[in-house]
Amino acid sequence: MNRVPWQEKPKDSKDILWRFSANPIIDRYAIPTSNSVFNSAVVPFENGFAGVFRCDNKAVQMNIHAGFSEDGVHWNINHEPIAMQTGNTQMIDSDYKYDPRVAFIEDRYWITWCNGYHGPTIGIAYTFDFKEFYQCENAFLPFNRNGVLFPKKINGKYAMLSRPSDNGHTPFGDIYLSYSPDMKYWGEHRCVMKAAPFNDSAWQCAKIGAGPVPIWTNEGWLVFYHGVIKTCNGFRYSVGSAVLDENQPDKVKYRTQPYLMAPAEIYEQVGDVPNVIFPCATLHSLEEDKLALYYGAADTVTALAFGHISEIIAFTKQNSL
Amino acid sequence: MNRVPWQEKPKDSKDILWRFSANPIIDRYAIPTSNSVFNSAVVPFENGFAGVFRCDNKAVQMNIHAGFSEDGVHWNINHEPIAMQTGNTQMIDSDYKYDPRVAFIEDRYWITWCNGYHGPTIGIAYTFDFKEFYQCENAFLPFNRNGVLFPKKINGKYAMLSRPSDNGHTPFGDIYLSYSPDMKYWGEHRCVMKAAPFNDSAWQCAKIGAGPVPIWTNEGWLVFYHGVIKTCNGFRYSVGSAVLDENQPDKVKYRTQPYLMAPAEIYEQVGDVPNVIFPCATLHSLEEDKLALYYGAADTVTALAFGHISEIIAFTKQNSL
Amino acid sequence: MNRVPWQEKPKDSKDILWRFSANPIIDRYAIPTSNSVFNSAVVPFENGFAGVFRCDNKAVQMNIHAGFSEDGVHWNINHEPIAMQTGNTQMIDSDYKYDPRVAFIEDRYWITWCNGYHGPTIGIAYTFDFKEFYQCENAFLPFNRNGVLFPKKINGKYAMLSRPSDNGHTPFGDIYLSYSPDMKYWGEHRCVMKAAPFNDSAWQCAKIGAGPVPIWTNEGWLVFYHGVIKTCNGFRYSVGSAVLDENQPDKVKYRTQPYLMAPAEIYEQVGDVPNVIFPCATLHSLEEDKLALYYGAADTVTALAFGHISEIIAFTKQNSL
Amino acid sequence: MNRVPWQEKPKDSKDILWRFSANPIIDRYAIPTSNSVFNSAVVPFENGFAGVFRCDNKAVQMNIHAGFSEDGVHWNINHEPIAMQTGNTQMIDSDYKYDPRVAFIEDRYWITWCNGYHGPTIGIAYTFDFKEFYQCENAFLPFNRNGVLFPKKINGKYAMLSRPSDNGHTPFGDIYLSYSPDMKYWGEHRCVMKAAPFNDSAWQCAKIGAGPVPIWTNEGWLVFYHGVIKTCNGFRYSVGSAVLDENQPDKVKYRTQPYLMAPAEIYEQVGDVPNVIFPCATLHSLEEDKLALYYGAADTVTALAFGHISEIIAFTKQNSL
Amino acid sequence: MNRVPWQEKPKDSKDILWRFSANPIIDRYAIPTSNSVFNSAVVPFENGFAGVFRCDNKAVQMNIHAGFSEDGVHWNINHEPIAMQTGNTQMIDSDYKYDPRVAFIEDRYWITWCNGYHGPTIGIAYTFDFKEFYQCENAFLPFNRNGVLFPKKINGKYAMLSRPSDNGHTPFGDIYLSYSPDMKYWGEHRCVMKAAPFNDSAWQCAKIGAGPVPIWTNEGWLVFYHGVIKTCNGFRYSVGSAVLDENQPDKVKYRTQPYLMAPAEIYEQVGDVPNVIFPCATLHSLEEDKLALYYGAADTVTALAFGHISEIIAFTKQNSL
Amino acid sequence: MNRVPWQEKPKDSKDILWRFSANPIIDRYAIPTSNSVFNSAVVPFENGFAGVFRCDNKAVQMNIHAGFSEDGVHWNINHEPIAMQTGNTQMIDSDYKYDPRVAFIEDRYWITWCNGYHGPTIGIAYTFDFKEFYQCENAFLPFNRNGVLFPKKINGKYAMLSRPSDNGHTPFGDIYLSYSPDMKYWGEHRCVMKAAPFNDSAWQCAKIGAGPVPIWTNEGWLVFYHGVIKTCNGFRYSVGSAVLDENQPDKVKYRTQPYLMAPAEIYEQVGDVPNVIFPCATLHSLEEDKLALYYGAADTVTALAFGHISEIIAFTKQNSL
Repeated sequence: MNRVPWQEKPKDSKDILWRFSANPIIDRYAIPTSNSVFNSAVVPFENGFAGVFRCDNKAVQMNIHAGFSEDGVHWNINHEPIAMQTGNTQMIDSDYKYDPRVAFIEDRYWITWCNGYHGPTIGIAYTFDFKEFYQCENAFLPFNRNGVLFPKKINGKYAMLSRPSDNGHTPFGDIYLSYSPDMKYWGEHRCVMKAAPFNDSAWQCAKIGAGPVPIWTNEGWLVFYHGVIKTCNGFRYSVGSAVLDENQPDKVKYRTQPYLMAPAEIYEQVGDVPNVIFPCATLHSLEEDKLALYYGAADTVTALAFGHISEIIAFTKQNSL
Repeated sequence: MNRVPWQEKPKDSKDILWRFSANPIIDRYAIPTSNSVFNSAVVPFENGFAGVFRCDNKAVQMNIHAGFSEDGVHWNINHEPIAMQTGNTQMIDSDYKYDPRVAFIEDRYWITWCNGYHGPTIGIAYTFDFKEFYQCENAFLPFNRNGVLFPKKINGKYAMLSRPSDNGHTPFGDIYLSYSPDMKYWGEHRCVMKAAPFNDSAWQCAKIGAGPVPIWTNEGWLVFYHGVIKTCNGFRYSVGSAVLDENQPDKVKYRTQPYLMAPAEIYEQVGDVPNVIFPCATLHSLEEDKLALYYGAADTVTALAFGHISEIIAFTKQNSL
Repeated sequence: MNRVPWQEKPKDSKDILWRFSANPIIDRYAIPTSNSVFNSAVVPFENGFAGVFRCDNKAVQMNIHAGFSEDGVHWNINHEPIAMQTGNTQMIDSDYKYDPRVAFIEDRYWITWCNGYHGPTIGIAYTFDFKEFYQCENAFLPFNRNGVLFPKKINGKYAMLSRPSDNGHTPFGDIYLSYSPDMKYWGEHRCVMKAAPFNDSAWQCAKIGAGPVPIWTNEGWLVFYHGVIKTCNGFRYSVGSAVLDENQPDKVKYRTQPYLMAPAEIYEQVGDVPNVIFPCATLHSLEEDKLALYYGAADTVTALAFGHISEIIAFTKQNSL
Repeated sequence: MNRVPWQEKPKDSKDILWRFSANPIIDRYAIPTSNSVFNSAVVPFENGFAGVFRCDNKAVQMNIHAGFSEDGVHWNINHEPIAMQTGNTQMIDSDYKYDPRVAFIEDRYWITWCNGYHGPTIGIAYTFDFKEFYQCENAFLPFNRNGVLFPKKINGKYAMLSRPSDNGHTPFGDIYLSYSPDMKYWGEHRCVMKAAPFNDSAWQCAKIGAGPVPIWTNEGWLVFYHGVIKTCNGFRYSVGSAVLDENQPDKVKYRTQPYLMAPAEIYEQVGDVPNVIFPCATLHSLEEDKLALYYGAADTVTALAFGHISEIIAFTKQNSL
Repeated sequence: MNRVPWQEKPKDSKDILWRFSANPIIDRYAIPTSNSVFNSAVVPFENGFAGVFRCDNKAVQMNIHAGFSEDGVHWNINHEPIAMQTGNTQMIDSDYKYDPRVAFIEDRYWITWCNGYHGPTIGIAYTFDFKEFYQCENAFLPFNRNGVLFPKKINGKYAMLSRPSDNGHTPFGDIYLSYSPDMKYWGEHRCVMKAAPFNDSAWQCAKIGAGPVPIWTNEGWLVFYHGVIKTCNGFRYSVGSAVLDENQPDKVKYRTQPYLMAPAEIYEQVGDVPNVIFPCATLHSLEEDKLALYYGAADTVTALAFGHISEIIAFTKQNSL
Repeated sequence: MNRVPWQEKPKDSKDILWRFSANPIIDRYAIPTSNSVFNSAVVPFENGFAGVFRCDNKAVQMNIHAGFSEDGVHWNINHEPIAMQTGNTQMIDSDYKYDPRVAFIEDRYWITWCNGYHGPTIGIAYTFDFKEFYQCENAFLPFNRNGVLFPKKINGKYAMLSRPSDNGHTPFGDIYLSYSPDMKYWGEHRCVMKAAPFNDSAWQCAKIGAGPVPIWTNEGWLVFYHGVIKTCNGFRYSVGSAVLDENQPDKVKYRTQPYLMAPAEIYEQVGDVPNVIFPCATLHSLEEDKLALYYGAADTVTALAFGHISEIIAFTKQNSL
């Protein structure tokens, strides 16, 4: 039974998202070769959960590994990275793979990630069983990051959020929407939302990027995203939420002016890249009004936070930018 | 009769491309509002020629204007920029338009240009008559420049060269190929050729970008492109040529190690952006073995150079990088 | 009775400034909306103390809040930012307010802060009761930060230290002095002291800026200031002291070559901006030879250190740059 | 008789400002020690004209020299820089002086310039005879450039435009207004106008700065200013105009979207700093509707352009941003 | 008896290098004036050990101090920096000294360090007793860092590894070899190894530099070196190993693709420069197959790690880049 | 007879160096493959002159070519670059060669140049006949440029000026002196002179580098050097002179505060790199008091200027920085 991992909100807490007391749930050395395990995607699978995990090895090569869990908290991650087979193209090489997301659409699990093809762009693959993976054409030209699929077709087409980037530590970043009839050719690109003005919401004033697969709610698509501020000592990544129009998801209905959660615990503030909270996946139940948010912390470990979906949506509406 | 503009090679010249003695052919103040007219595209049209011209006005707003000529040398450029109608999309706004190319494919003229949509990307429009223009979906997400269509479908699909960029004076740039079944959705992105190593060919070591619409020859697709070196006093743009495989135009058969032409005349060395030769169009006749290359000079005026196609191809093969 | 908060120097310690064992005294979440509370100014007020506190909210908007304390250690900070009324001008808008200082001069408390008016400059306001605040003309054109008033007029004029800046994470910064006859017009600008040569005192080689309101002593004006070094991983802020001439405070009599205190505790080294000690206020008693220094730590929390004024002055004289 | 230098508009010209056919009027080697003479200010004086000229010597030290002319075209420039006496302060040292302006107010000529005092700021001096000059307090803290006085008091106070800057080749710049009761203390700083959005008017999108002393007209204050675009090969300086409210000159009534004049002649495009037109002074007659604009060209020589004041104002109104 | 400091590998550990459980062994305040003690060199000396230690004082001036230890773990560091006498030159001034290494060659101890002479270059001195030190000519022109001598002559000449640099926080760095017949003139410069391609080994993709004095083994010279990656929040320094050819040490036989040790403990991740492991010396016994590696942590403290030489060499061979 | 090329100073000229009226003497297309010919070195040879010329080919690969002239004005440059044989080392590869100088010492001509070995450093070769060239060890580690030999040994050792650099368009540069007993190992590095403070001599405030081989005079070594200022539109290279102590040439006796010559002619102001005068060689006769200075102009062509040695020395003494 794939029940959403859960821990009740601490008494006296007024947080919309609260951290799991046993964080981090996945250590940097979770597999023998790993330098860090973070920015990873999980989904319900069979009686438990499966996931695709960013594991940088000790040469600091970035790759994605499959993993499995019964409870969503304790994970067995394969020691070997995913070996791709050809999907809708012959081209399956990639210089590196990182920051995966997983969306179940219709009959299969689609994985998207930041794929190294002469620079970062959005790689796409699918699997039915988390054993065999089929790599497809990259969605876009370089340079792009944070490609995130909607979990169902919109107006008969696949839809993907992404963040056009450059080839380095990109100092800018806005969220765009693109459509595809076939997961091979993409178009109808629309700007969805941009980094906020400094005076209005500085935590998200340098760049923003989509996080977990959007969640369908009766208010529209609930989206978590990371927002970045550049302090005099580097980037700081926090998490916010937005609600997008159901049928025209390039229309933003609400978007949080305050962050939902920002780096404040030692495992978020200290690590390979200090001060990073990077959300990549949720497990959730609309019926139970529960949501578990998986996020990378300090680009080093994987952590978990919880929230009530109704509270998150209410907060997003009441604190909209 | 749309004969290729022509002037014989000067005696004693060993140049593969030689400049028109009456350069520049279009002055910066060619229309009342213009600050500069450059980087412009021409095609045979009816009994003469038509073109789409980049005219920056005196507010230095960038836009594209239609123009007409009987001989390809003397041009009447419309004083008003092209007013677009909707093509395959409702979205026809653009913050700016510059660096157009024009390709005739099957039944119509397709215009591509650098289109301002939250940054530069590739705009697409078509016309049958250079009076009515229909703007279509942008080909790609920002940031992109120098989108150039092949003049016929390849393997049943439209094919476009482009140069992924950033949002400023991009310090990098390689040429990619993308395909579309319908001029709306694009995919199958492939890297075609990259800026050259400094030690091998420094004039093209900072960035490169496609120029005129490729020319079908029995050796393959003949392509002119600009290459850029960054000196301590800024970018310098020169022109080279390459031959791409007929059916797999992401395969480079030959590519010039030396440039064909680099800034050396005062109208190329002095202007709004000194030291720029930027090729955007050709008129040519395979039968007559003549080619007229239109290029922007110093981002200020439009100039013309000539060459024999057979010589260009031979030179490209013999001096391949 | 507003006694200076105090804790004796630890045995065996040879530090000139020593930290409060209960640091930090104000947590980042001290008020419901706050992301961080730091770089804040306190003064004796009525039977206890009042202060103006920089509270960045969870949208990371910067503002200043009034607060009160009986012992200088435990603070009640207003949940709402200060609402300004018009002082000597109609112009009272500001995009943001941060890094306040408070000086009592003659009959009222003057607050200065970094005020967002097309970039950072020095805002001025006064209050009699910490309830009603009256905003005056900005002292200077942008860009400026760290405006600090002397606690009495000098040669019949108000005097202010400040640090001309740029509009970002300014990589330079020296301390200047300016005079005003009326708190409205400012002039007679003089350079007081500059960042030190790297070889002489690297901790203060990138930039320096005034901290608390200067303290009148019989040696001259005792000033604490922050000094910054740029390591390969960002800025590091430490604190030093100087003694300025009583009547010509642009003359530096002594200035510490070593720092008095540099980031070494976890709450100073880890936070929104790691490795920051930023002094903004003192409570002190010349009679008791006691000084309590309030400083922001890691741009996140507020902390306290103690020292004997006589020792600080002696150290400054003996270790002068 | 100090008649405005004049040359009729060329036939067929539709320019609002047209260049003097004998440009440049002052050569780079106009005095024995000079490397360049440019960015200089002229006024009617006695029966002819006097001026203050930026002369960089062959060590490329920047200084200002007095000069005299009978016709405003042919100038005798003193070989020695101006030797300042003390005005309203003891402080008369300056590391360098450049880019002067001269305004006659009430009973004397006020000179403002970019004064080197720990970086650039605005120097002030006065003279009655262009022989004896009295240096006053700098108007502002560093860093500032392009301080330009209004030719009469406004609301009983001196008024100055300026452009807050940084200590290098400042990549930003907006025009501010400040007031002073006494030419010593300055305040009431207001933002007047900012660099324009790229899409609206790119020639002035990087920075702008005031040029000649404003001209009182019945429409308000006529102001010329320089606007700058950053191309991939450096800054390009052009000239525009604006009309400010008579009594509240921080209110912009009109401001040109197109430039009035941009670098297009060889002496503007080639020199120590290519592509610079930098206006610093006018001679004009409202009665005769004539205006002569003095500008530095390529940071090397001094040139002259002409216009009808009524046409300039009409153009500014009709083409307002 | 100068036995190698040692602690057995923790059970279950598969690390090639493991940390000393009592780390850090030298605190930042180890001597009264110190801000930090790190990047320091130790050697066997008499019945125990001697060392040269980088001690930044509280003015953050960098200097080197001698120190002594009986067990290699507990150190007495002189409170005064080393006072140099003249060696093979009259020039003995240096603006600063940091990052020392010590090599015993033939009859004396040679110290090399980063010496401030119009920027960083490689200083050289020798001592017989760690009391009297004789400073020689700098090895190279500025800018250079990390000069490390081989412990015996190679082909009759002294040999030194070094890393050409720039004058700031150098963003590049490769390891070179130079020879000298006499410790005064240097030549025969050869590139030994360069920063690795990002895709192959990102932890060492920004720059690399030699660490401890090379160790002669029957496989060749065993070298430890630091490798650096530039994350979006700054540099991260890790340690790798290589084996160089015995007689031609510019030939790299093996070099680790994974790091041996990267910042993961709080004293390595938090400090004056977070995320730095910087190895500078070893004590080792080939007979006992033991090695103690001394490294600076976070540019703040000194720490110790252990390994078996045979395991390190085997790992280097099996995981060679 | 190798008479110094000469043209009398123009009447009325007060210049210390005056340009040849037939400049440029070598065109950019002087040999069939060349893009530019500049920064080149000439010496008396047999009955005329020989030289080593920087010829960038049309791939903009940099190399050095031998050439010959009867009069020093008209040159025959070999179409093929110099093919090096091994001198005092086996290492003769170089990625590129540029900016040569030639010094005759004792029995042969020594060529030094900027040699590409993992970045720029100083290459050394010798020839007896300008037909056979023998390449020796590079003098220094990268990164270095402008290595210039003294024409005789000093204190029994070869002496070389050079300018430590970085791997790009180096923004800094000072002149150093190094000695070698054998042209293989170099040491005793001394700083000779540094870029000047901006306020004192801005034309040489960014970087300086040695030019032609020093000339022995009874005042000491006469040296010409280039000085660079960074304007907002790039670097500008001018030429100055200095006199160094005969026996201790790291002692500067005199150095020009003003430049001797700065870019002012169109062939100096316009070209591949605008605003460059780069001196590389002289022909001179102390007896006739004549000097011909060869310099690269705009990194494109080669030009010639003349001066009287006695006037140059007198000017240097009278205008010393």
